[in-house]
This record gives sequence, structure tokens and C-alpha cells, in this order.
Amino acid sequence: MEATRDELAASGYDKLSIDRIATAAGAGKQTVYRWYRSKNELVAECILEGYVPARTAVIADSGEARDDLRAWLRAFADFLAEPENASLIRACTAAAAESDEVAVRFYESLTATNEAALTARLDSAVRRGQVRAGTSTAAMSEALIGAMLYRLLVRQPPTDEFIDGLLDMVCD
Amino acid sequence: MEATRDELAASGYDKLSIDRIATAAGAGKQTVYRWYRSKNELVAECILEGYVPARTAVIADSGEARDDLRAWLRAFADFLAEPENASLIRACTAAAAESDEVAVRFYESLTATNEAALTARLDSAVRRGQVRAGTSTAAMSEALIGAMLYRLLVRQPPTDEFIDGLLDMVCD
Repeated sequence: MEATRDELAASGYDKLSIDRIATAAGAGKQTVYRWYRSKNELVAECILEGYVPARTAVIADSGEARDDLRAWLRAFADFLAEPENASLIRACTAAAAESDEVAVRFYESLTATNEAALTARLDSAVRRGQVRAGTSTAAMSEALIGAMLYRLLVRQPPTDEFIDGLLDMVCD
Repeated sequence: MEATRDELAASGYDKLSIDRIATAAGAGKQTVYRWYRSKNELVAECILEGYVPARTAVIADSGEARDDLRAWLRAFADFLAEPENASLIRACTAAAAESDEVAVRFYESLTATNEAALTARLDSAVRRGQVRAGTSTAAMSEALIGAMLYRLLVRQPPTDEFIDGLLDMVCD
């Protein structure tokens, strides 16, 4: 994990070399592949184990839900606009798509936390009449996160206009 | 492509063998890997080229948007509930996550069509006052598709309750 972290920092995801990681860790390449089926799985493990910091979800509560949600979604979009971050999140996505085990761990240690924070912020906004009532805030938060990941997958960075469209959908 | 289609039909995605595909195609394994970097890319190509039929988006227009959208989302969920379909779509997702080129082709030949059909159905519903007005229907449709793909990625099949939550979010 330390060797992978260092190689990620030095070479970036696209040029990451399993050979260099194996050498730095004093192991053979085959040993690496015995534990991780692909470069994606190795990188996902590194993120899941906290060696590469994943973005922490901090959603402000200023009292104005639309502003707070917009700021959070824009920060998410800005994070994904960095090519290296986009590569890491795409690697996690690919690893989760390929492996049930990675998917479950990815969900439990990263996504569920973001989802819960977003749902809590939406709940508080519903109480103040700022987000549409009578709708599952959990479904809303999955729709917001899903829309952002979808944009990452299809290589269409979320614009401010797109983010405002999402906000119109949930805000009252 | 024909050899991949036949091998998919015979063995399914999880047990798909590049060796058997190469043999059936009269080529070497290395030749296959020269063209497709991974099993996911090979399978994605097969779907993109129409050798394995992708689900056709037919969204009814009965005049009742909520019923039509629910039927479409449930059919999507039922499709993904088949393990072989889920494997194929996850393979496409992984291939799109890994490759810019696959991502763009995947979007242009498959996803954009679904998105356009869904947006058109939402537009007609807005005109009848059945879907929330003043919101970008394009953003809504990406949120609905994104939410379903997100559920596939985190291995939580969309329940009827989840689908109703999504419908509450967009319907008036």
C-alpha cells in the first residue's frame, strides 16, 4: 500500500507501474497480481485503506439549503475536474464494477458516508421548507450522487447549469 | 466479435475465456489483447457493435407519466436483476471508466439514446402538468439514469420503494 501510494504520487494513475510498485515493496509482480486482479483493484484498495485520502464530505449548514447544496456539488465537480482525481475515482468505479467485494467495501467505507451526510442535510432542509417535502430524501441523495458519477463516466464534466438543474429538481 | 458473442452465450461473462475466443476466431491470444486491453473492453465492443443486443428504450406514452415512468424504471430494474445482464452492463461500465474512447462511444451509441427518449417523455409530461415544471428535464433524466446505475455499482438492486422515491422527486 505504501509503495502504491508513493508510485501514485510520483507517476499518477495513468502511468502507474506495477513493476515499480513490486520492486519498491520488495515483492515480485506475480505476488502483486495474486492479491489484486488488476491495477484498478490495487488502487481501489489503496483508497479504501486510507493511504490515498478520499474526499471528505463536508456539507455546510448555513440555513440556506440551495446555497449549501450548490457549494457541495460544485466542490465535487471541481474535485472531479482534476485529471488525477478523476482517474482515481474512475479506477474505483471500474474496480467496483468488476468485483462484488470491492463494490461492497467501496460502498460501506466511502459512498455510504457521503450519502448519509447528504440525506441529513436534505432532511434539515425539508423541515425548513427549502427542499421538496413528501419525497424520500435518501432517493434524492442517490439521484444527486448518481448524476455526478454518471457525468464522470460519460466524460461530460458537470457544468454550473447542470448543477442548477439538479437543484431545481430537489429544492422548493 | 462473433466468437465473443458465441462465447458469451455459451459461458456467460464471468467464465468467458479469451483463449476460447481466440481459438474460435483463429487468432492468437496476443492478437486479441493487441486490439482490446481487457475482457471488459472486448465485451463492451461487442455490445457497442450490436453483436449482443442492448436493451431498447421504449417508454410508453399512455397519458399518465407516473405510470409510464414507473413501468420503464421497473423494466430497467428487472433487466439489471438478471445476473448475466448485470455482468454485461458492469463490464461496459468498467470499460467506460477505464477508457476515454469506450466512454465516448458508449455514450454516443447507447446512453444518449436512452437519455433523449426519457427527456422527451418528461417534456410531454411537463406540458400536461404531470412532471414538475421549471426544471431541466435533461438534468432529471440524467439523475434517474444515474441513480439506477449507481444502484448497480453498489450492488443494491432498485426496489419498488426506491423507484417510487425517484418518481416522487420528478412528478407533480
